[in-house]
Amino acid sequence: MSDPPLFDESFRQLLNQLFLWRRDVRRFKRDPLSDELLKDLLDLACLAPSVGLSEPWRFVVVRSAAIREEVRTEFTRANEAALGGYEGSQAEQYAKLKLSGLEEAPVHLAVFTDRSTTQGHGLGRQTMPETLDYSAVMAIHTLWLAARAHGVGVGWVSILDPVRIGTLLKVPHSWSLTAYLCIGLPEEEFDVPELQRVKWERRAKRGECIFSR
Amino acid sequence: MSDPPLFDESFRQLLNQLFLWRRDVRRFKRDPLSDELLKDLLDLACLAPSVGLSEPWRFVVVRSAAIREEVRTEFTRANEAALGGYEGSQAEQYAKLKLSGLEEAPVHLAVFTDRSTTQGHGLGRQTMPETLDYSAVMAIHTLWLAARAHGVGVGWVSILDPVRIGTLLKVPHSWSLTAYLCIGLPEEEFDVPELQRVKWERRAKRGECIFSR
Repeated sequence: MSDPPLFDESFRQLLNQLFLWRRDVRRFKRDPLSDELLKDLLDLACLAPSVGLSEPWRFVVVRSAAIREEVRTEFTRANEAALGGYEGSQAEQYAKLKLSGLEEAPVHLAVFTDRSTTQGHGLGRQTMPETLDYSAVMAIHTLWLAARAHGVGVGWVSILDPVRIGTLLKVPHSWSLTAYLCIGLPEEEFDVPELQRVKWERRAKRGECIFSR
Repeated sequence: MSDPPLFDESFRQLLNQLFLWRRDVRRFKRDPLSDELLKDLLDLACLAPSVGLSEPWRFVVVRSAAIREEVRTEFTRANEAALGGYEGSQAEQYAKLKLSGLEEAPVHLAVFTDRSTTQGHGLGRQTMPETLDYSAVMAIHTLWLAARAHGVGVGWVSILDPVRIGTLLKVPHSWSLTAYLCIGLPEEEFDVPELQRVKWERRAKRGECIFSR
């Protein structure tokens, strides 16, 4: 074991900026991402917390142009179905939103949770088995922050049928899709979420979500 | 909008150290945590990504000594039930593990996901509604990293019945427990997970979880 690192005020201020400027990116440049950087980001993701040290995350880099095309088709289908749930001006506004960068992003990364893993020997997941999926979510979030620190953007595409994506990618049945990510250089950088910039929604007031008992 | 911050190599190296030295802490000093720091950490947590900008996280700071005692009782009950699932030497080993810092940690923080929130107008969560819970998970992970940068430890207690905790804390029925956290100064700092140090489990080999298609 080495000595613990010292995190000082200047690091904390930059870390806060990282949280503030991390974005869900849907507008990517087409520049490729180096395999080395992707590998580094995936290694960092594996430092995330996991219930019982189960490390249930499984990363699938989707390189096949044919599969990527099928994923885009799946997105279009699911997004049209979602549009059907809105009416009037909200439907008009929804139709104009750009909700994925599947076309432009150089990297497609599917992240699964292996629900059958025996790693961790089931510790900590008897009463809350969903913590297995949550572990993969924290790996994704780790990758997201690490990417942003390299100026690389990540967009989480959730408008997909998770079972169909698993089938397309021919993964084991015990793997559950946690996220489908687009990764690449963002076209622009913002400290305000796109959904707020286009007035779909705005952030809640500070402190509104804090309660005590 | 201000200019985007510049994250350089020295920041990235320290960020990697943060990922490496973040721990799930179960051994806390009893020193109190200032309300101001807790408030700052909760404000940072709210910068996490959320599906459709729904910000579904609800933080409940558990200050009541009576409720904290009841939570400890709930943990003991759930942990004894979990122990019943192991046999032989594994049961002996499980019984010796320290799996929560509920007794010593100065702060108990329950984090819920409000599954009834209309914020975000349902965007992005038709095919994968669990992304609402995942948003709260990323808020928790944000708080975890921000805390560690202050030398403050976080421990996630998942060995609890989530419905009973919601009842104890008298939260709305639509709030689902995502995590129950202990927060405070750690007794010691390590770069290796406690479950690996005590030989319950070890990390997977690097790269083993990466696939391509």
